[in-house]
Amino acid sequence: MTEPTDPSGPTKVDVAALTALLDGEYADVRTLVRDNLAEHASILEDAETMSRDEFRQRVLDVVRMMAGTGQTGFGFPKEYGGGEDIGASVAAFETLALGDLSVVTKVGVQFGLFGGAVLQLGTKPHHDAYLERLIKGDLLGCFAMTESGHGSNVQALGTTATYDAGTGEFVISTPDDRARKDYIGNAAQHGHVAVVFAQLVVGGESHGVHAFVVPLRDEDGTVLPGVRIEDCGRKIGLNGVDNGRIWFDDVRVPRTNLLNRYANVSEDGTYSSGIDNPDRRFFTMLGTLVQGRVCVGGAGINASKVAIAIAVKYALQRRQFGSPGSGREELLLDYGQHQRRLLPMLARTYALHFAQERVAADLHTVFNRFGEVQAADDEHERRALEARAAGTKALGTWHASRTIQECREACGGAGYLSVNRFDALRADTDVFTTFEGDNTILLQLVAKGLLTDYKDSFEDMDQIGMVRFVAGMAVESVLERTNARSILERLRDVVPGNRDSVDDPESGLQEGAWQLEMLSAREEHMLSGVARRLKRGIDAGRDPAEVFSLCQDHVIGAAWAHVERIVLEAFLDKLETVEPGPNKDALNHLSDLFALSCIEADRAWFLEHGRISNARSKAVTRRVNQLCRRVRPLAGDLVDALAVPPEMLRAELLEFSGS
Amino acid sequence: MTEPTDPSGPTKVDVAALTALLDGEYADVRTLVRDNLAEHASILEDAETMSRDEFRQRVLDVVRMMAGTGQTGFGFPKEYGGGEDIGASVAAFETLALGDLSVVTKVGVQFGLFGGAVLQLGTKPHHDAYLERLIKGDLLGCFAMTESGHGSNVQALGTTATYDAGTGEFVISTPDDRARKDYIGNAAQHGHVAVVFAQLVVGGESHGVHAFVVPLRDEDGTVLPGVRIEDCGRKIGLNGVDNGRIWFDDVRVPRTNLLNRYANVSEDGTYSSGIDNPDRRFFTMLGTLVQGRVCVGGAGINASKVAIAIAVKYALQRRQFGSPGSGREELLLDYGQHQRRLLPMLARTYALHFAQERVAADLHTVFNRFGEVQAADDEHERRALEARAAGTKALGTWHASRTIQECREACGGAGYLSVNRFDALRADTDVFTTFEGDNTILLQLVAKGLLTDYKDSFEDMDQIGMVRFVAGMAVESVLERTNARSILERLRDVVPGNRDSVDDPESGLQEGAWQLEMLSAREEHMLSGVARRLKRGIDAGRDPAEVFSLCQDHVIGAAWAHVERIVLEAFLDKLETVEPGPNKDALNHLSDLFALSCIEADRAWFLEHGRISNARSKAVTRRVNQLCRRVRPLAGDLVDALAVPPEMLRAELLEFSGS
Repeated sequence: MTEPTDPSGPTKVDVAALTALLDGEYADVRTLVRDNLAEHASILEDAETMSRDEFRQRVLDVVRMMAGTGQTGFGFPKEYGGGEDIGASVAAFETLALGDLSVVTKVGVQFGLFGGAVLQLGTKPHHDAYLERLIKGDLLGCFAMTESGHGSNVQALGTTATYDAGTGEFVISTPDDRARKDYIGNAAQHGHVAVVFAQLVVGGESHGVHAFVVPLRDEDGTVLPGVRIEDCGRKIGLNGVDNGRIWFDDVRVPRTNLLNRYANVSEDGTYSSGIDNPDRRFFTMLGTLVQGRVCVGGAGINASKVAIAIAVKYALQRRQFGSPGSGREELLLDYGQHQRRLLPMLARTYALHFAQERVAADLHTVFNRFGEVQAADDEHERRALEARAAGTKALGTWHASRTIQECREACGGAGYLSVNRFDALRADTDVFTTFEGDNTILLQLVAKGLLTDYKDSFEDMDQIGMVRFVAGMAVESVLERTNARSILERLRDVVPGNRDSVDDPESGLQEGAWQLEMLSAREEHMLSGVARRLKRGIDAGRDPAEVFSLCQDHVIGAAWAHVERIVLEAFLDKLETVEPGPNKDALNHLSDLFALSCIEADRAWFLEHGRISNARSKAVTRRVNQLCRRVRPLAGDLVDALAVPPEMLRAELLEFSGS
Repeated sequence: MTEPTDPSGPTKVDVAALTALLDGEYADVRTLVRDNLAEHASILEDAETMSRDEFRQRVLDVVRMMAGTGQTGFGFPKEYGGGEDIGASVAAFETLALGDLSVVTKVGVQFGLFGGAVLQLGTKPHHDAYLERLIKGDLLGCFAMTESGHGSNVQALGTTATYDAGTGEFVISTPDDRARKDYIGNAAQHGHVAVVFAQLVVGGESHGVHAFVVPLRDEDGTVLPGVRIEDCGRKIGLNGVDNGRIWFDDVRVPRTNLLNRYANVSEDGTYSSGIDNPDRRFFTMLGTLVQGRVCVGGAGINASKVAIAIAVKYALQRRQFGSPGSGREELLLDYGQHQRRLLPMLARTYALHFAQERVAADLHTVFNRFGEVQAADDEHERRALEARAAGTKALGTWHASRTIQECREACGGAGYLSVNRFDALRADTDVFTTFEGDNTILLQLVAKGLLTDYKDSFEDMDQIGMVRFVAGMAVESVLERTNARSILERLRDVVPGNRDSVDDPESGLQEGAWQLEMLSAREEHMLSGVARRLKRGIDAGRDPAEVFSLCQDHVIGAAWAHVERIVLEAFLDKLETVEPGPNKDALNHLSDLFALSCIEADRAWFLEHGRISNARSKAVTRRVNQLCRRVRPLAGDLVDALAVPPEMLRAELLEFSGS
């Protein structure tokens, strides 16, 4: 046992250098956004004092002012006034999440979802017609996909778009209340047009879901005939975003309002598409959502930074109880339990930051050819990106929910006051686990990708299709495809055999290779277990839906294991680029703390499957405690390096907890 | 493996009979409260639409109207208009938590904290002066204990009350901003007097913290000279309660304003008390807080009922995805993962309900002699009650936070709309984990009690004292005191030896005796481990504060293990009173699901300590899944039996998720 604060190891980090490492190649973009945040910092207070209508207007104003700085246009082609740099676009968006999250969400709706749909699903005439005004924030729009009765199952949408060859128009209709568009941002007040997802019907034949530009309001903001809009009303958070419901009563739009990058309808009513398979076509269109997922994951991770910065700073000022006679109470962060609550979350925040940097870089690579239809060779890469984006989004947003809540509790009663930021942080980020893809569904998508190697056909499968597909394969062929297997093989050349045969159960715990071996072995084992169970169920003649239901927790567990492994890999890869010195030492501690916290949290699995001995399992817990004490003296610097602008910390509690 | 819904076992329960069982002996009181809630149901909407000032007034009005029905006065003597029935008082309070929680909290502040302090710490003149008006809600008051710099460490409060023998007055002073009273309910607007906790100084000598009645406002509501009050402003939730900060600038009150049940100051400035030891005196006074903790725990558990009822009902209506060609999507509750998310929480809600019933009954027994100074013999019993109350409060309120959050996520986007209740439920209950004792500190209190057998001296020890105390004892003597040891001995006569020697790892999993043996063994082992570590640390000459910091997670883990064991015991005890039949079968399933979920969640511990084999550990997980499928067909009835008034469900999402 060592002291509550372990004096060995580094006690200082170079904060500026660490911030530069975290900011990476988009440091300038992040600086621009931080400056914009500081300039409009009063919006944090406005969120509490303004009426809902006033605050919605205020958020819109701030979004437009930020658009004026170019901050929100990085994702668009230069010819329309954009920055033509996807990576910059993601960096700007996620950094924006250090501030008010209604602004972030409004930006996401306008430039990511609405703008992204026009850009990715439309063609030059649509770009010419909308992009310039859209980028400036002059033309506000909606992304009308979700319906009251259909959230995750987009293929089952009820809204129809029926081609009328007589007039050359599409007729957009809401057949029943389950098919009303719901939770649509910008719908209740500000949106003038919407990209509406609807079942395309031509000549009585359905061609599946396609996207159409449908005007909602005239220049004065009056809702157009045939359109009915209802305000979703108050939400848990994000009340600066005007979510609404939309019904269409045979609204007619010109044929050219079909966003026709992937499919078209000719004047005479002939349907054509460069992608023959209707499912593949649908999921190719849906693939354009990937940027939104990357952005939301990054926003969640950055919101966590604000919470952990406040809670750590508070714990470095606030004193409670103490040794009798010392006349002085102890700092909260000198309590072992308080270290346990906060420091593994700090480590995980760093880990997810680097994982996010990786997925944003992949997105940049895959999407940097605007307007070009992807070559078939790119599809595998693109699906792998979709899976990585889905996984990072799920873990990043769950991390936000948990971290913000734990930080609130760790600040006690002071944490409950809105002025100290946790109110907005938790209320606003809460829905991040649901929107842009429910996290549970996203992890199923990750598992599907792993089990089917992102097969040409995989995206067209729901869980039932996945069950059938896997049931038709040999388990070995599933495993050969997973990266976990090849990592294991590579690591086995590096890592000495079974550690448990060594006398010292502590041996090697802090080697990245051993940690990665553990997470990879878990992933491989869980995936093969899922594949076996699916096969066995089908072989026994069960209904695929039942087979899936029975294994669902296992499927999701396997995906979780995969994502934690790739997060650790991203952290270890990043570490290799860092020069030796105190910063590298500090990051090594965080990486160890992250990896061992993951192993500790799931140590029952490692024990059950004979991957660690009882003694080693206990050693992991001891080491996590020890790492907390090592990180303790660095904690202040490590949260400073996250570079949350002081105006965004706001927290009154930090002015007032000194002794 | 069985089907997603397991058709074996009961498929029906007698809902009315189950509600009667849950309501217990205070069914009439609970019915009164449910009727009052239904009558004032519009307050749920008012919470969203009114300004903060309007809503505070509305909450006050509702509290007064409820006071008029006698609902809030059960805890007071009949001679002042009360009901003189502590058990009824708790039942009324916790049932009130099915509705708006600002009302609940305002009731708690006025009748529990303020009223309770006057009743428990004051003597007949105080009762005569305040109780009748207080019970009617005519005299509104505050409980001014917490200070900005001192939350959990009440003994370190900075406010002083200095006796001036010349005038026969106490002078109440706030020496600095750390000593301002903070988060005080009723302070910002409605409170006319406060019970102020301050360091009593007589003749230059400090006698520790005592309570004084201090007027805050005149009849018109104007703040009195020398008193300064600031509004705490907006909070995460409970915005119908007017929390404030108070500074006292040499405010003079008559000598008789000391609440003098346990100590007095004579006119000439002589201090006297029936309790010689100052620490014991202080903790005896603090012991009167126990009722508040019992009430808050019950409120958390009842708020969870609302959330689980909405989420289960939604999952029984909402469909998503489905077998191709079936033309029908699956109900959410037929997905294995969805069952996993909700049904163990339903089981835990039932378990905590029965644990709460037990602690409320104990409170009733211990506190039912109003005004009498407790006999020394009662003290052990009283401290055991305090520990049970602390533990149930901690687990009950954490359960509320987690359940409400999980239920929100399980309802997707619909869960995010305020109209569907999760907004207020989670925002309002969030601080339950902090107020009336921070949960982490409360679990430390539980552990202290176990380690010291509620010794005469135990309450006067902070963690340092506890470390020293335990270090001075033999570990065996710690264990002999724990109930866990005697349970284990009793069970070993009943339960056959090591199950793992049996071929079938499933054997006995559903025997309550085995489950209780597991939880008791964990408790005993963890407690003895803590005792050993504390001794070892002190023996090695370490600073007690450091020793405590290093073991703190272990201390808290031991307390958690203890509380889960007593919760399971309460459930099993209740089951013994139920007649055989479908209701008993259903409750048996819930009890098994609760117990096995606890074991599953901590199965790493059981594995590490050789209490279960790998095969048995996996069997526990399988059995939890199987129990979820068994409970699945009963889930609708089981949430109906919780008897949440339909007006309190409110949830719009339930009208609109059918197929």
